[in-house]
Amino acid sequence: MAREISRKGKIGQPPGTVIHTGRHKPELKISFFDYTESTLTVHETAKVEECLSFENKQTVSWIDIQGVHDIETIKKIGEHFRLHSLLLEDIANTDQRPKMEDYEGYLFVVLKALSHDTDKHTTLPQQISLVIGPAYVLSFQESDRDVFAIVKERIKQGKGKIRKMGADYLAYVLMDLVVDRYFEVLERFGEKIENLEEDIIHSLTTETVDLLHHLKREMIYLRRSVWPVREVLSGLQRNDSVLIRKSTKTYLRDVYDHSIQVIDTIETYRDLLAGMLDIYLSSMSNRMNEVMKVLTLIATIFIPLTFVTGIYGMNFAFMPFLSDPHGFWYIIIGMAVLGAVMALYFKRRGWA
Amino acid sequence: MAREISRKGKIGQPPGTVIHTGRHKPELKISFFDYTESTLTVHETAKVEECLSFENKQTVSWIDIQGVHDIETIKKIGEHFRLHSLLLEDIANTDQRPKMEDYEGYLFVVLKALSHDTDKHTTLPQQISLVIGPAYVLSFQESDRDVFAIVKERIKQGKGKIRKMGADYLAYVLMDLVVDRYFEVLERFGEKIENLEEDIIHSLTTETVDLLHHLKREMIYLRRSVWPVREVLSGLQRNDSVLIRKSTKTYLRDVYDHSIQVIDTIETYRDLLAGMLDIYLSSMSNRMNEVMKVLTLIATIFIPLTFVTGIYGMNFAFMPFLSDPHGFWYIIIGMAVLGAVMALYFKRRGWA
Amino acid sequence: MAREISRKGKIGQPPGTVIHTGRHKPELKISFFDYTESTLTVHETAKVEECLSFENKQTVSWIDIQGVHDIETIKKIGEHFRLHSLLLEDIANTDQRPKMEDYEGYLFVVLKALSHDTDKHTTLPQQISLVIGPAYVLSFQESDRDVFAIVKERIKQGKGKIRKMGADYLAYVLMDLVVDRYFEVLERFGEKIENLEEDIIHSLTTETVDLLHHLKREMIYLRRSVWPVREVLSGLQRNDSVLIRKSTKTYLRDVYDHSIQVIDTIETYRDLLAGMLDIYLSSMSNRMNEVMKVLTLIATIFIPLTFVTGIYGMNFAFMPFLSDPHGFWYIIIGMAVLGAVMALYFKRRGWA
Amino acid sequence: MAREISRKGKIGQPPGTVIHTGRHKPELKISFFDYTESTLTVHETAKVEECLSFENKQTVSWIDIQGVHDIETIKKIGEHFRLHSLLLEDIANTDQRPKMEDYEGYLFVVLKALSHDTDKHTTLPQQISLVIGPAYVLSFQESDRDVFAIVKERIKQGKGKIRKMGADYLAYVLMDLVVDRYFEVLERFGEKIENLEEDIIHSLTTETVDLLHHLKREMIYLRRSVWPVREVLSGLQRNDSVLIRKSTKTYLRDVYDHSIQVIDTIETYRDLLAGMLDIYLSSMSNRMNEVMKVLTLIATIFIPLTFVTGIYGMNFAFMPFLSDPHGFWYIIIGMAVLGAVMALYFKRRGWA
Amino acid sequence: MAREISRKGKIGQPPGTVIHTGRHKPELKISFFDYTESTLTVHETAKVEECLSFENKQTVSWIDIQGVHDIETIKKIGEHFRLHSLLLEDIANTDQRPKMEDYEGYLFVVLKALSHDTDKHTTLPQQISLVIGPAYVLSFQESDRDVFAIVKERIKQGKGKIRKMGADYLAYVLMDLVVDRYFEVLERFGEKIENLEEDIIHSLTTETVDLLHHLKREMIYLRRSVWPVREVLSGLQRNDSVLIRKSTKTYLRDVYDHSIQVIDTIETYRDLLAGMLDIYLSSMSNRMNEVMKVLTLIATIFIPLTFVTGIYGMNFAFMPFLSDPHGFWYIIIGMAVLGAVMALYFKRRGWA
Repeated sequence: MAREISRKGKIGQPPGTVIHTGRHKPELKISFFDYTESTLTVHETAKVEECLSFENKQTVSWIDIQGVHDIETIKKIGEHFRLHSLLLEDIANTDQRPKMEDYEGYLFVVLKALSHDTDKHTTLPQQISLVIGPAYVLSFQESDRDVFAIVKERIKQGKGKIRKMGADYLAYVLMDLVVDRYFEVLERFGEKIENLEEDIIHSLTTETVDLLHHLKREMIYLRRSVWPVREVLSGLQRNDSVLIRKSTKTYLRDVYDHSIQVIDTIETYRDLLAGMLDIYLSSMSNRMNEVMKVLTLIATIFIPLTFVTGIYGMNFAFMPFLSDPHGFWYIIIGMAVLGAVMALYFKRRGWA
Repeated sequence: MAREISRKGKIGQPPGTVIHTGRHKPELKISFFDYTESTLTVHETAKVEECLSFENKQTVSWIDIQGVHDIETIKKIGEHFRLHSLLLEDIANTDQRPKMEDYEGYLFVVLKALSHDTDKHTTLPQQISLVIGPAYVLSFQESDRDVFAIVKERIKQGKGKIRKMGADYLAYVLMDLVVDRYFEVLERFGEKIENLEEDIIHSLTTETVDLLHHLKREMIYLRRSVWPVREVLSGLQRNDSVLIRKSTKTYLRDVYDHSIQVIDTIETYRDLLAGMLDIYLSSMSNRMNEVMKVLTLIATIFIPLTFVTGIYGMNFAFMPFLSDPHGFWYIIIGMAVLGAVMALYFKRRGWA
Repeated sequence: MAREISRKGKIGQPPGTVIHTGRHKPELKISFFDYTESTLTVHETAKVEECLSFENKQTVSWIDIQGVHDIETIKKIGEHFRLHSLLLEDIANTDQRPKMEDYEGYLFVVLKALSHDTDKHTTLPQQISLVIGPAYVLSFQESDRDVFAIVKERIKQGKGKIRKMGADYLAYVLMDLVVDRYFEVLERFGEKIENLEEDIIHSLTTETVDLLHHLKREMIYLRRSVWPVREVLSGLQRNDSVLIRKSTKTYLRDVYDHSIQVIDTIETYRDLLAGMLDIYLSSMSNRMNEVMKVLTLIATIFIPLTFVTGIYGMNFAFMPFLSDPHGFWYIIIGMAVLGAVMALYFKRRGWA
Repeated sequence: MAREISRKGKIGQPPGTVIHTGRHKPELKISFFDYTESTLTVHETAKVEECLSFENKQTVSWIDIQGVHDIETIKKIGEHFRLHSLLLEDIANTDQRPKMEDYEGYLFVVLKALSHDTDKHTTLPQQISLVIGPAYVLSFQESDRDVFAIVKERIKQGKGKIRKMGADYLAYVLMDLVVDRYFEVLERFGEKIENLEEDIIHSLTTETVDLLHHLKREMIYLRRSVWPVREVLSGLQRNDSVLIRKSTKTYLRDVYDHSIQVIDTIETYRDLLAGMLDIYLSSMSNRMNEVMKVLTLIATIFIPLTFVTGIYGMNFAFMPFLSDPHGFWYIIIGMAVLGAVMALYFKRRGWA
Repeated sequence: MAREISRKGKIGQPPGTVIHTGRHKPELKISFFDYTESTLTVHETAKVEECLSFENKQTVSWIDIQGVHDIETIKKIGEHFRLHSLLLEDIANTDQRPKMEDYEGYLFVVLKALSHDTDKHTTLPQQISLVIGPAYVLSFQESDRDVFAIVKERIKQGKGKIRKMGADYLAYVLMDLVVDRYFEVLERFGEKIENLEEDIIHSLTTETVDLLHHLKREMIYLRRSVWPVREVLSGLQRNDSVLIRKSTKTYLRDVYDHSIQVIDTIETYRDLLAGMLDIYLSSMSNRMNEVMKVLTLIATIFIPLTFVTGIYGMNFAFMPFLSDPHGFWYIIIGMAVLGAVMALYFKRRGWA
């Protein structure tokens, strides 16, 4: 639930007040990249001031900040790039819903990067904020799990098309990476659901049901993080600012397709889990029925028989058959016949 | 349910008849603010006439009225600002659905401010009406819980941007405050749902279930108050009157995002509560099954055995083994074997 | 169900055949009003011919007909005002869905007026048809419950704005009255639902559940009558014919808001009733569980004990303890210990 | 289920291959009408060639074919009127979904005519295809139940407006007839649902429940046939070809309203049936509870008492009271008291 | 579940990296067709280079590749036809959602061809990718089940219109074939559902219920494959590039109608299966009730009677009737009367 909302101590502040609300307070790490196809400048764990001196429209600059609790750094960057105060507020407040906002001169994108905690079978979200300018990209990561490590490596090695393209392509690559991780998370859930499907039919324990309910709950959170991403990406695609080139839009359409695929899979998982709950409930009631049938079978056969023995256990002075030498056997046979008749009746009605 | 509808004694009145329908009748309090960045006039608990003498297009005037049961005051203000009679009717009738209406020359906004009653775990609604003119804002609060106290303080102290901006920005700040309180209310519910989640697994009592149903009901009311707010805010944003400046629309987009986040959270809570009801019901049927299994186990083992003792309790003159010195032990051993066989059969079928 | 569909004897008739299909056949009553702000002509229970002689574009004429089974009268009016034959068919056929149709020269509106039958806790619908022309309004009421009595009084007394305004305002007043009555009906249901909410927790009887199901069913009918009204009113508002003046549209927006509020409340009631059914079902299964636990407790403690008494009730010649003077007490104590152990075991597992 | 899909032997054929897939193979009947207001030519059970010689733009020609299994006839007509091969394919394949297609020069409409089989309580569908040209209408009926018999009679007798109007009005009359029959079918279901409603409360048998499930299933099929009709009719209304005159569109709006009313009623019936299933399930669980309570009452009172008799049935040599002359009565009274106490306890907890 | 997602080893790769992710690795087969109405060139199982030499705008060229695991072949074709790298990535990655993408100069379509595995009652999907150029069509099939065999035959024999039409018509024929197979799969499911419907009423076993849940799950997968096809086909129809001629759009409308019909049927099947689950659950609870009633009947009749026998089995020295010669019969008759009374009471309350 801690994943939900935590705007504590924020209500009543003037709008645009930058306050950090997250749980993560990693050591601040700043990575600075300034590149063209042929040139490359890299600063890592640098002070923010070093990154701001550069500003060259011919090169692509990327500043990646890990840790959004350092309000001062965010403010400095904000001033340098003339960012709106509401935008800075949103970067520091890590309870945003994924969204895309078109400010004049730059675009602002908020996403949730997900990773999977295999021990607790839960999903760990991390807020990613991107500011996309004409020749720069600013990225803010909430925790110290570096989602973008692969891209940094790729830029350094000059692999792929990335060094040849503009800031919008870099932004695309970053968003593509975030969406790609959703597949990773889904794959893990997929495996668990597959196992669950077999368990629910063959070896149903309380743990199975608890896991089922747990997965249903995880899907609710997952869906919440991913649904708005679709709108973000379709918004970027339809956006008519000069910031996103036409060639990049073809790539954005691709990420958009991926996001739809992710949503589709989440919905399928939800349907499957709902179906499993149905299976569980009907198998529960099935077992109950079986147990009840056995109880009823035993009880209805033996209760009348016991009644008969009760009769012959009474201490009346005069009772028929009592002193007959074969009396006992008459009664035993009588009871056997009665029991058989009742058992047969049961079989007929399909109860046993 | 009293929260629902109470238009009693209203049906059949000519349209535009101003009638108070609310439950709150607080002492009437009027706060008047007239300010520019450098000047400030404040009247508190003044008579309404004092506020109406001012009218200066250069300054921003804000009249805040707490208590809408005083029809005369509302009518005086209505006449002074030439407000439509239907609008006045809506201010006094506190059962409005949140809405935004575009009258020529001013905008009319109705919202529900919520606060949380921690004793009864319920949400207390209060109707807030705003009239946004070119250089004035009128605000009407239903009860004496002053939602806007913080803004009044901020204006007096000249903190934040508020004194530098126009009437539309003031209106934004007031609406932002109302939406911000929704987070406060949601946070309380969030905590309760979190507790509930643990209780439902570990210590399930009737109170837990009652609370679960209570929270589900509260979510229905909450949703009802907040859903239309989204439309109100998107309406204001899309509005093309000159009353809302472009710079203010960036801020309105922010409140709009917040309202979507609130709705999102309510829907997530609803999903979670529905999931908990599923957990509760399946754990109930689980327990039932367990209890039934024990009953069946005991009954099916002992009923046949008791039948056997019944047989040997019969008073026939001639019965096998009766006079055998070890007869008793033969039967006891026979019964022990029978009991063991049945217990084993049960174990095999997974019933015990 | 009689409320549903009854087009008996109609199929295969040529289109435009005017046939009455309703249940109500009240005495025909015609009210005729012809007014300006200063002049007023009234005919009540007049013959239809008397009303048709008037036709003066300067005055507003209102003909209100109670009882639509008199086909001849409808046809005469239809001819006089040159109404389309399909429209006349719809007036006489009282199973229409609320709708708004734009014929050239006049608008046609069908609504359902509702009133509440307190004895049977049901809603009585009545079809209201309005024809709105440039200077006239025709209204047709199905039964003799006069929904418009208040308006007639108001016109006669010259109260309110009604005499100063045109035919479109009159039409608005009539529709406003119909929608206002929905609140009345909802209020009654609201009270009943409130009572039900308490009953379902404190004193649950079969009647409570029957009422619950009954109210659910009533909500289905209510919803069916009110949903289309929203479209009717938004259609009138968006309509660009000259028949509806701009000033009247502000009023229509108000009725439209009311209709949304009514729908909102119906949906809330449906949600609440669905929630109550959940409460009922979970409390039922709760009780069942309680009863079963007691049964199991009693049975599992006494069945083994009875088995022990059975053993010592057997008539073997040689059994241990039988002749021991304290044998009886040994066994009694043994049984007491066994019973206590089982009761404790139950308590531990939380079953009693 | 046979109602669903039966494209057997069709897959892999080149598009436009005309193959009959239906179940009905009635005797082929062709009716030909050629009329103006004053003239009329009729051929019945004629050969298709006789109908094709006529082609006069001044008159309206209507060819009605009953039986679509005669591929040759369909092809001849298709060639004569220059119809698209896909259209001919759709006429012969009677598993179409209702649809409207705008070919250049003519419109193509597919509908499902329904009739009610009172014996099996099911709905019998029949595919109706219409081709609407500038001065001709072609209609194809799947079976020998002649849906259009009334219209044929009306044309012959010159009743109604039909002879005065064009081909588009004729097409409207035919479609109106098809939609009118839906009301007939719904009426039958309405009656059955009404009966069911009473049965479910007063005399619940297995047949009632089977009927309930049967009606739910019928509603699924009904809905499937009628939903697309709405789109067909709104498509015709919005169509801007010259084939549909403006005056006819007023009539089409009327059929469109009817189709919405039919859909509305189906949805209401579905809601009612779902509500009845709820009633049934809660009354089932109610009965179960009652039965269980009685069992528990009896068992919990008598099991302990029987245990007591068991104690005094043991054969110990020394037991208290045994030889006391009033011992029997002491025990009997003791048991009576115990039984009364337990019954009282039950009453208190509301179980009996 | 393996049907879901398998992008293993892909995350972090630069965009446009062509990696095969499917399960099928059939022997690579390439079919090349180059035709006009009068000429025809065919290469089968040729090397890809042979196909690429042809490029003649006057003829239609079709390259069909079975097996998408051979990355090199895909890349060669991609280079030759200047296809976007993202498109090549999508061809090799066989976990795409059906989609249509408009690249400049060619269209890209992804579909899922389905076939039915009668042994496991499951649906086998196969990804089909189509590239539609001005005078060529490229088709990629994932497995060695050749979906297009019939078309190849038809081209060779010059049957149908196919040789007379352009590349867009060829593409239509291929898509039509894919959609046609959906009907085949649905037909199989339809038969199974029909059988299930009877089984669920007459001979309900655990297998029936398992099949029911299995079919529900299959419908989830089926729906997932078919829903997006609708959008693909409506996208192609609305597409305004020169690649799709107007005459071909009439054909595309036809496939589009088919896809809607398929979706419609899937939804109907889902509704039917949900209805069957309801039937199953209510019949389960019905049986449970029956069983419980019998148990209760037997128990409530015999438990009190057994108690009576217990009383007379007690060993008190002095008990009434014991030594009376008819005592036994008095008690027997008394018990018979008691039993009859209880049975009657049961009958009255409708429990037996």
